[in-house]
Amino acid sequence: MDEAPRAGFARIFRGPAFTPVSPTEVAVLDDHLFCVDPAGTVARVLAADDPEAVELLAHHRAAGTLTEAAPGQYFLPGFVDLHVHAPQWPQLGRALDRPLGDWLMNYTFPLEARYADPVFARQVYTQLVENLLRQGTTTAMYFATVHTQASVVLAEICADRGQRALVGKVTMDDRSSNPDFYWDADTASALDGVVEFIERVHGLGSGGLVLPVVTPRFIPSCTDRALAGLGEIAARYGVHVQSHCSESDWEHQCAFDRYGRSDAESLDGFGLLTGRSVMAHCVHLSDRDAELFARSGTAIAHCPVSNAFFADAVLPLRRRLDEGLEIGLGTDISGGFAPSVRTALREALVQSRTLDHGADPGRPAPERGTHDGHIVLEEAFWLATAGGGEALSLPIGRLAQGYAWDAQLVDTTAAGGLPLFDVRDSRDVLDAILLVSGAEHIAGVWVAGRRVIGD
Amino acid sequence: MDEAPRAGFARIFRGPAFTPVSPTEVAVLDDHLFCVDPAGTVARVLAADDPEAVELLAHHRAAGTLTEAAPGQYFLPGFVDLHVHAPQWPQLGRALDRPLGDWLMNYTFPLEARYADPVFARQVYTQLVENLLRQGTTTAMYFATVHTQASVVLAEICADRGQRALVGKVTMDDRSSNPDFYWDADTASALDGVVEFIERVHGLGSGGLVLPVVTPRFIPSCTDRALAGLGEIAARYGVHVQSHCSESDWEHQCAFDRYGRSDAESLDGFGLLTGRSVMAHCVHLSDRDAELFARSGTAIAHCPVSNAFFADAVLPLRRRLDEGLEIGLGTDISGGFAPSVRTALREALVQSRTLDHGADPGRPAPERGTHDGHIVLEEAFWLATAGGGEALSLPIGRLAQGYAWDAQLVDTTAAGGLPLFDVRDSRDVLDAILLVSGAEHIAGVWVAGRRVIGD
Repeated sequence: MDEAPRAGFARIFRGPAFTPVSPTEVAVLDDHLFCVDPAGTVARVLAADDPEAVELLAHHRAAGTLTEAAPGQYFLPGFVDLHVHAPQWPQLGRALDRPLGDWLMNYTFPLEARYADPVFARQVYTQLVENLLRQGTTTAMYFATVHTQASVVLAEICADRGQRALVGKVTMDDRSSNPDFYWDADTASALDGVVEFIERVHGLGSGGLVLPVVTPRFIPSCTDRALAGLGEIAARYGVHVQSHCSESDWEHQCAFDRYGRSDAESLDGFGLLTGRSVMAHCVHLSDRDAELFARSGTAIAHCPVSNAFFADAVLPLRRRLDEGLEIGLGTDISGGFAPSVRTALREALVQSRTLDHGADPGRPAPERGTHDGHIVLEEAFWLATAGGGEALSLPIGRLAQGYAWDAQLVDTTAAGGLPLFDVRDSRDVLDAILLVSGAEHIAGVWVAGRRVIGD
Repeated sequence: MDEAPRAGFARIFRGPAFTPVSPTEVAVLDDHLFCVDPAGTVARVLAADDPEAVELLAHHRAAGTLTEAAPGQYFLPGFVDLHVHAPQWPQLGRALDRPLGDWLMNYTFPLEARYADPVFARQVYTQLVENLLRQGTTTAMYFATVHTQASVVLAEICADRGQRALVGKVTMDDRSSNPDFYWDADTASALDGVVEFIERVHGLGSGGLVLPVVTPRFIPSCTDRALAGLGEIAARYGVHVQSHCSESDWEHQCAFDRYGRSDAESLDGFGLLTGRSVMAHCVHLSDRDAELFARSGTAIAHCPVSNAFFADAVLPLRRRLDEGLEIGLGTDISGGFAPSVRTALREALVQSRTLDHGADPGRPAPERGTHDGHIVLEEAFWLATAGGGEALSLPIGRLAQGYAWDAQLVDTTAAGGLPLFDVRDSRDVLDAILLVSGAEHIAGVWVAGRRVIGD
């Protein structure tokens, strides 16, 4: 008898599961085994009635390395949150009625300036990471602040707590466009700080769990020299890049005024649109900008909640998906008030329909909306999981062979139970999990095979 | 010493509180006493540093009739949900991607037909009422089904469990527009059933906690004879009326095709727009319809989540508020996927902004939206509480003298705590409660002074 495959699995997870297999298709796996290797990767998926499964179950049950879903529990991929301003956690939900300038200058920037204090940073970031894990967010892409030390603290907390994370020390060195209490004092030291940050994150020994990200806040807050320098650093280290792109009418126009070309073209000119780039919002991309995104492999972090407050319009999600762009979801803490990718998923559905049918009942129906279609629930699930994984070029967001076991176990019987009286098939259960469940229904969360939430 | 006022209070609630005082103004009461009489009405509100407060506190503490907020806890009015299809609870979140006809004929109507069985009704409605109370919904306006017995069961459960409720047995007697497995078999017995239902609810002895509502499903599902009969019954018994009005382009057009006038005008012609009428959706009202609403005292149940799926447009909320219409919020279970008025509040904010700035980034900004303004958080709070109370002409939705003690106690430290690191004033706390908190932060709920959730 060949013992090797069994001995090769560190743990087996057994239960029903939902996983995206394409942007429009969900696999409903009714009773399956997910065999995870010591590196935390799914090495094998097989149905529980496969003859081999019986043996594997016996072996791992005896060894205490079997995790079984209880009745009413379902495995899903963990959520991928592509856009989080970590330092803004203390003001989540606050002051969103204020105009952007007021919100930035009187709330956001004074708060971000406080992360000069690494003790404050550790206190906030510890709570943030804990909260996002409880929400089922197994991967988060973070903007930190300009402060190297506090940014490293965030990376350390993610590594210690076991959240997969992409962390960026923010660059904002243009003296004319940043507040005098919060900016990079000079360009050379800003770039040196980014290099130092990348090397310190690489030195954490997180086994690739936490990755550094080159992070110009956005074009309007950076000098050309900084933008060019960041493009070079990104190429030299092969790291991810994140920024904001064409979020609002104002931001979209800024690049035209400064460079005579679009925000996307300008970022590309600085070497900042790569296969590892994720740009937040992108509501106002032209179709030509979208082609540039597709060609360069740049992904969109779609942040529907904050877009309602700051973007002046709705992302044409149906169109961008049809163009084959890589797209995932972002909470945009704290431009968005909701810490959960679940809420972003729901709001993406709602806004996609609103764009399609239109908003103003004072216009006749044919002139009201774009009438070019909306996304469906399968696609929203994709965006929240596998779409985020593809955006990051990481093997995450699916429960499938070769992917990391970054997973959540949803208990439909918890917290009074989801209303599932009349279930015809498992797809009904998925509808309720995606649209109705909350963090209180999460019974367990794993990242790279390690349990990070639950007993 | 005059003992009468103290003896007259059944219980005193002490703590900080937030309550709307007008559509645009919130009172922040930092440490106050709310003195509730034996009928469950707030008889007196006074600051804790009022000399009389000391005596009252001592008296009620000794008597064990003092409830004090712990640090981090705040009293708010309970939520008022103006539009709930109670029988649809088992399919919450399900099949919303389906077109309306499919959703009704293959999901909703077959499910509603099952309430011919009062045992099934009791099972579902018990869970529904429990869940809504946990969400902080102290008052709900319910559509039940055509079944008299099952509708009475819902009223009984609300009375027993202590939820303030307005319950309607649904009328849908037009043979041509309803499915053959679910409709009122004939008009006369449908109307008799409504009268029987009203009298049985009046006979429950709930002390006014549960009220019957005349409930034509909507014009397209009723005969003229039924609509006229319902108008007469509403007048004869002086009860509330609820229905749907101009929800979608299709529904808005139906009345023109049938009567040559609008849905609102048609409802009015049958005597169904009264000071106690609440109409769901109303997205496509003309300005003349809105004047009719204002004149008759008819209220709008704004259901932003379900509107995204079924209404073809966004309610012009800013305009309707400025016209002085009575407006509250509805979850529209299960046309909406969220059981909480909190979600409706947030979605009302989001959609109001979307209508204002517009959705399609392909249009120039000036042509994109209505640019006539959006609501702010204070108004969203009003809609979820006092606005709902005014819509129902009931003394609820405020923590103020003469109003019922229908209240929720929100614990900002529960479930890991709301992110409140940096609070400048209590208004910051209210922002986080309204935009970030969930049912898991509710430490207690009271209706008419009776504790219905919590120890």
